[in-house]
Amino acid sequence: MEYQKRIEKIQRTLRRQKLDAVLIGQPANRRYLCGYSAPDHGISESAGMLLVPADGQVYLLTDFRFELQAKAEAPTATVLLYPKGLLALLLALLPDLGIRSLGFESDYTLHSVAGALEKKCAGLGITTVPLTGLVEALRLVKEEAEIDRIRASVALNEAVFQEVYAQIRPGQTELELAIAIETCMRRRGAEYPSFETIVATGSRSALPHAVPGQVEVLENQPLMIDMGLVLNGYCSDMTRTFPLGKASDRYLEIHRLVRRAQLAGIKAIRAGVTGRTVDQAARQTITDAGYGQYFGHALGHGVGIDVHEDPRLSSRSGKRLKAGMVVTVEPGIYIPGWGGVRLENMVVVGNDGCEVLNSDTTWLDI
Amino acid sequence: MEYQKRIEKIQRTLRRQKLDAVLIGQPANRRYLCGYSAPDHGISESAGMLLVPADGQVYLLTDFRFELQAKAEAPTATVLLYPKGLLALLLALLPDLGIRSLGFESDYTLHSVAGALEKKCAGLGITTVPLTGLVEALRLVKEEAEIDRIRASVALNEAVFQEVYAQIRPGQTELELAIAIETCMRRRGAEYPSFETIVATGSRSALPHAVPGQVEVLENQPLMIDMGLVLNGYCSDMTRTFPLGKASDRYLEIHRLVRRAQLAGIKAIRAGVTGRTVDQAARQTITDAGYGQYFGHALGHGVGIDVHEDPRLSSRSGKRLKAGMVVTVEPGIYIPGWGGVRLENMVVVGNDGCEVLNSDTTWLDI
Repeated sequence: MEYQKRIEKIQRTLRRQKLDAVLIGQPANRRYLCGYSAPDHGISESAGMLLVPADGQVYLLTDFRFELQAKAEAPTATVLLYPKGLLALLLALLPDLGIRSLGFESDYTLHSVAGALEKKCAGLGITTVPLTGLVEALRLVKEEAEIDRIRASVALNEAVFQEVYAQIRPGQTELELAIAIETCMRRRGAEYPSFETIVATGSRSALPHAVPGQVEVLENQPLMIDMGLVLNGYCSDMTRTFPLGKASDRYLEIHRLVRRAQLAGIKAIRAGVTGRTVDQAARQTITDAGYGQYFGHALGHGVGIDVHEDPRLSSRSGKRLKAGMVVTVEPGIYIPGWGGVRLENMVVVGNDGCEVLNSDTTWLDI
Repeated sequence: MEYQKRIEKIQRTLRRQKLDAVLIGQPANRRYLCGYSAPDHGISESAGMLLVPADGQVYLLTDFRFELQAKAEAPTATVLLYPKGLLALLLALLPDLGIRSLGFESDYTLHSVAGALEKKCAGLGITTVPLTGLVEALRLVKEEAEIDRIRASVALNEAVFQEVYAQIRPGQTELELAIAIETCMRRRGAEYPSFETIVATGSRSALPHAVPGQVEVLENQPLMIDMGLVLNGYCSDMTRTFPLGKASDRYLEIHRLVRRAQLAGIKAIRAGVTGRTVDQAARQTITDAGYGQYFGHALGHGVGIDVHEDPRLSSRSGKRLKAGMVVTVEPGIYIPGWGGVRLENMVVVGNDGCEVLNSDTTWLDI
């Protein structure tokens, strides 16, 4: 990937903002800028920080445990270890590099960490400056090579879905199916699932984020599967809902309505429209049919190195879409006690419309 | 679990600190106080916040996707939804409850979120106060029922290890073994792995946090497996290293040294000693044998609802251990290009020593 070009873009922004350097800790941003793929074990256990000066080489600061991985994955960065913690290393390194102003990620730095950093830096005459969206702004519009990777991630995700779908039988549990899916993902080369796989049967499908349980999937009941994986650093995310056996009339009515809403959303997507407009296009279809109260979440979200990233397709997103953005389109109707239907595909925004990245048609148009 | 008693302890602390309420978002803290088990999808996507007033009932604030799970799991809390985001709900709710001062978790609140909260609250005359360790302080010393759950988690983790260990053959890949372990965990009732399972063969075992790859495990080479699971909300964490086949003399020397260091650490553990003292007891054994530079991480960490929590057994931990704390003891020696050995058990701190929670003896005393 084009790490050096991305770094140069960040460096130009730093110089424009009169900042001497920025610390990048958000794992997807870190990976985007240098290729280092170690995930954080939660925000309290960082696998490293990238220090990007306004000029010159970048430094990947990490600890002993990740030294070999950092050196192997991020050859464009100089790897430095912090045996006594990040702050101690920074306090030695920043003055050496002549850094007097240091940006940090306000959206991925803990309040306590930012406070300690500000205080210690001030002691050395270094100003800390909270930044938001610095790297995320670059990640919004995908490069061609990134779209190719997302395409491959989507294709593998669909292949996994198909392999498991062919074997689903009433009496299996949600958990067995979720395990089968995640095992198949990893056997076929995914790094890991991009989120905890959702398998929800019957009325449990009314929980949009159901945790798969020791619950048997039942004949003639809806089954919702929401799954995604990471392949070569890029995520996929897809939902299919289908009746296991015979669908009731009510099921068919709701399923078709959700699909109509999805198609209305897809039709509304092109460069220049806002996320709100797209959300509204899909939502109106559901509201007009009297089910508006049962569609309680946003229509979609960006997908890239993170499975949930900007842009959002929601009633609160006033930003305009650009060509090269990748988003999900995933309307849903969830009726407590009865169940739910969600259908989710991914698309690339184009200048005159969008390209649907999914080719799987399982139970979409019924 | 004793949610009400835990809440009352927090409320006493709030009253002592003259705070009207505290917001709890750290997932383990949230679960500890009310039973709600949904994980966050990273710190940027909270599955909810617990609002604990200094007096009276607690509120679990979440969104549509988690409503049913929140109500089912946290009956002691009043569940409120935030269709327009947490901040909007808080700004309506706090004045209604007469809250004039609001604590928040400095160690689990993003800099940007804390800033927005402070600003918006100030507009309503509400002061925000960063707190650290409020709930973590309670979680440090485990209740009997918690130790029972940890015991069960350790036992299941060992059973999974044994099941997979019996089937390991040269030619399998690290990834296959990691998948077999994680599949077995979930089949046998674990909620999920407590961290990404580590399976590292040969010289790759020199990476303390190796990611399992498409690499065949080789005969007469060391194999390191570090695995843990979550059962009923409580974590386990265990590492075994063993030669697959015949061990070289050098392997045996290093393995026995690591085990001696582990036993020295275990022997040093009892209420009243510092984490540093315990770390030093184990480290000295390795340093005396000339391998000090190859043991680059801390000796151990607390385990509970989080797999990595306080107390730490490290050269920087000056706090004294208390009876009822649960920690890992996991010395390691990692030689780049050759490989590594780590052995990890969990113990409960007692007044006169400690109790080792593991009963598995695979390749410990050789």
